[in-house]
Amino acid sequence: MREGEIIERLLRPIATHPAARGLADDAAVWSPPMGRELVLTHDVIVEGVHYLGTDDPSDIAWKLVAVNLSDLAAKGAEPAGVLIGLGLARPDDAWLERFASGLARVLVEHGTALFGGDTTTGAASAVLGCTAIGHVPRGQSLSRTGARAGDDLYVTGTIGDAGLGLAIALGEAPHDAALLRRYRLPVPRLAMGQGLAGAGAHAAMDVSDGLLIDAARMAKVSGVRIEITLADVPLSEAAAARLASGDAGRLAAASAGDDYELLIAAPPESRAALLTLSEAARLRLTRVGHVEAGEGFSVIGEGGAPVPVSRLGYEHGA
Amino acid sequence: MREGEIIERLLRPIATHPAARGLADDAAVWSPPMGRELVLTHDVIVEGVHYLGTDDPSDIAWKLVAVNLSDLAAKGAEPAGVLIGLGLARPDDAWLERFASGLARVLVEHGTALFGGDTTTGAASAVLGCTAIGHVPRGQSLSRTGARAGDDLYVTGTIGDAGLGLAIALGEAPHDAALLRRYRLPVPRLAMGQGLAGAGAHAAMDVSDGLLIDAARMAKVSGVRIEITLADVPLSEAAAARLASGDAGRLAAASAGDDYELLIAAPPESRAALLTLSEAARLRLTRVGHVEAGEGFSVIGEGGAPVPVSRLGYEHGA
Repeated sequence: MREGEIIERLLRPIATHPAARGLADDAAVWSPPMGRELVLTHDVIVEGVHYLGTDDPSDIAWKLVAVNLSDLAAKGAEPAGVLIGLGLARPDDAWLERFASGLARVLVEHGTALFGGDTTTGAASAVLGCTAIGHVPRGQSLSRTGARAGDDLYVTGTIGDAGLGLAIALGEAPHDAALLRRYRLPVPRLAMGQGLAGAGAHAAMDVSDGLLIDAARMAKVSGVRIEITLADVPLSEAAAARLASGDAGRLAAASAGDDYELLIAAPPESRAALLTLSEAARLRLTRVGHVEAGEGFSVIGEGGAPVPVSRLGYEHGA
Repeated sequence: MREGEIIERLLRPIATHPAARGLADDAAVWSPPMGRELVLTHDVIVEGVHYLGTDDPSDIAWKLVAVNLSDLAAKGAEPAGVLIGLGLARPDDAWLERFASGLARVLVEHGTALFGGDTTTGAASAVLGCTAIGHVPRGQSLSRTGARAGDDLYVTGTIGDAGLGLAIALGEAPHDAALLRRYRLPVPRLAMGQGLAGAGAHAAMDVSDGLLIDAARMAKVSGVRIEITLADVPLSEAAAARLASGDAGRLAAASAGDDYELLIAAPPESRAALLTLSEAARLRLTRVGHVEAGEGFSVIGEGGAPVPVSRLGYEHGA
């Protein structure tokens, strides 16, 4: 399929929002809602790095958009639209059709418009980009820099499932549909994120490279010290059944990437509001640590003492 | 350089706008100016397709941003910021430093902020994406769909220089600094674009794939017929000296890509305002054709009759 046909046949039917101008103009034109600030994020995923060339293109499209919506969720934003940049090699029509179907699915599921983008073939291997645009009431966006001494540290959902799902996708572990799904089809925690500012949370970020490394990053940019209690790291039943018991298993879960859960710092008086919010969002919320004055980061093991950690999570490569 | 270092050492110093949050958060947070609509565009450039692996990385960065700002110019928008997505192979530090210097230069030159983005290494070859965000007074954005019967068709600047510059870059033509520069460092026609709605223009788009093919596209989406007079296609002195004389040379110029000039349809009563605007922008403006009722597109040669055209311009191909 030529680039023009990809747009005409596969993408235009998805781009129904008037801002997209039917993908027939140079740019999208959109009126943002009054009294809101915009939240803008752009993530790139690379074949062979963030996904496997053999993955279902529908799942790749889902993940491309979902990881960006997860960034919006972490800032408390409501998504409005995305622009998609596809640098493709020589995709066949079946690949393109599956990709477009996954794109349509993730956008409809999260009430998000396709505003525009660009499609090019002839790359040595695929590189896919997504810009997501959301909005939040003025002054209400969360930052990862706001954690304060005395805050509790919470995480949504369960941790480590996606890391186990990746092992399954690589053929290194026996099949489990739920774990694989957590790796392939992450769910941005939008409803939870949008309620955080109202509940009085001080800071939030999404957990993409691993709970430990992302918590260490929050500590650094907030200028505080964070302590995580390993025994409190929430595991799914499927993950608990696979991981070693005790500290070793929870360390593995908390240093695996791709969770796309929210990490939240909030004062003790926000606890009730946060629990109400998590119930409304039908999403588990677990206190996994706390914030202190000082600097640095530590992980407390079963014995109540700090555990040495050699690798906090996924560090982007050289 | 690791991805974290690329951000910290090379990109953070450029991202001085508060919306960028020092590139230390999950997303940028920006308050758009009141009473304006947003104009959003995303273009991808691919190593080996849109630029050569041996090109100066500073020029690559310039072109990545400039081609997106050109889309904003065509809609009449004032640029606000960009998000940059870099899917890189294994760039060395010198490449990255040159890229960052070109990025800083194009952004400062056009008063545009670096809002955010993402950097990943490990791609088979480089794919670079840019989302540009601009704004325009509500209801004042131009579209390529607005051309009407009776309009004159204008183009800014000169046509065909960048096509000759590409031949020089490929080593297929003798050196000429000015022509090479038109290929490598396109200049978005922002001031001109921002004045078009006020001057009463009906339609505008940027010329990226060739004057003829882009004019044919405007005719198609506007539901009109466009006629271009070859003898009126504006050439630079450097281009005129290289091209065949008469129809053949002007056909070559008008079917070469990468001009990044503006193609404008406007009623005769806008002529004076457009000329005033082009003088203020110190930019040549030439009437190259007109718009009629009907459909289709034709090119009039020196003899006053339509000239058969086998290839209108650069068609993106699979």
